[in-house]
Amino acid sequence: MRKSLIIGVAGGSGSGKSTISKRLKELNGNNRVEIIDQSAYALVDSSLDLLDRRKVNLGHPSNVDFDLLKDNINDLILGKSTNSPIFDYHTYERTDEIIKHEPKDIVIVEGSLVLYDSALRDLFDIKVYVDTDADIRLIRKILKDTKEKSLDIDNIILDYISRDKNVYMNFVEPTKRFADIIIPEGGENEIAIDILNSKIKGTFDRL
Amino acid sequence: MRKSLIIGVAGGSGSGKSTISKRLKELNGNNRVEIIDQSAYALVDSSLDLLDRRKVNLGHPSNVDFDLLKDNINDLILGKSTNSPIFDYHTYERTDEIIKHEPKDIVIVEGSLVLYDSALRDLFDIKVYVDTDADIRLIRKILKDTKEKSLDIDNIILDYISRDKNVYMNFVEPTKRFADIIIPEGGENEIAIDILNSKIKGTFDRL
Repeated sequence: MRKSLIIGVAGGSGSGKSTISKRLKELNGNNRVEIIDQSAYALVDSSLDLLDRRKVNLGHPSNVDFDLLKDNINDLILGKSTNSPIFDYHTYERTDEIIKHEPKDIVIVEGSLVLYDSALRDLFDIKVYVDTDADIRLIRKILKDTKEKSLDIDNIILDYISRDKNVYMNFVEPTKRFADIIIPEGGENEIAIDILNSKIKGTFDRL
Repeated sequence: MRKSLIIGVAGGSGSGKSTISKRLKELNGNNRVEIIDQSAYALVDSSLDLLDRRKVNLGHPSNVDFDLLKDNINDLILGKSTNSPIFDYHTYERTDEIIKHEPKDIVIVEGSLVLYDSALRDLFDIKVYVDTDADIRLIRKILKDTKEKSLDIDNIILDYISRDKNVYMNFVEPTKRFADIIIPEGGENEIAIDILNSKIKGTFDRL
């Protein structure tokens, strides 16, 4: 198998990371792009009961299973298939099931903290940070949480202030300086997506 | 003639704009890349005497001849050759000479304020902002001004505080939000240069 191009896509919650990853997958086809989502690697002590598990801040780096994430990516780099976990956001624990990932030309690893761990960063050929204004990210969270999770606005804002904003300032935003390239205003930035996609195409055209 | 790809490269003084522009020219060849430098378009009232001309803040947008800059770029877009002015930083005025520019596949327009003027921005196919930490930019200014201009450190710092920093905060940094793509740490970011260059190659390979 030819060498995969490994792309890390970091940025705050609601920045547009997933949209960019999905657009790159659309542009190159499912059989050429594998997406690994950091949120599947959430770690919560399963000895806690549900109420206490729900108090765990999943955005904090201490609650991300970076070791397994790196193992999975290394498998793909070596041309082997690998199994990522599934985290159930209802029961707030890792399920017994897995998702099988096949090695492909392009592996996109997306998540708020994928530029946080230095050994993880070193696995990426291209490090991308999606930089979207805080108000736009908050608007996306409000719309998502009211519609998809039926939460009320007071709880959403309390959650944002006490968790998301702290995590962003302390652990996500500082990783911007490790990026090779910064994409402003996430998923709707078609010119940036086109530029990244040119790099993808150029990498494999030359082989 | 096939359509040119017009790339605007903005960022603070010492950010690495010129280095990136020159690398893209090296990678694609002199006969395919034309660089237009905003600093040639400085405007100073020639009725002032030399001492007063030197007080003019060339970094301020009111002292940039955006109209002529746009005319020159529009000529190149239309496939016509064009003449840019020459600004003499010793006499602090525009000289009687011109530089002839030929229309080429890739036209790079570089300068601190090339994303400031909205009609100028609209001429660019790709808007790039080079984002380099203020201390690194200051270090580059100090090294350049002590070595090339033999200025003493007190004058350099006075100039930086009274002019460069103000201009950067008020007129340069706010244009970052117009960028399609942000390149951290300027000229030494080879991965970002490679990504931009893939876009250049892809644009013309497809024609």
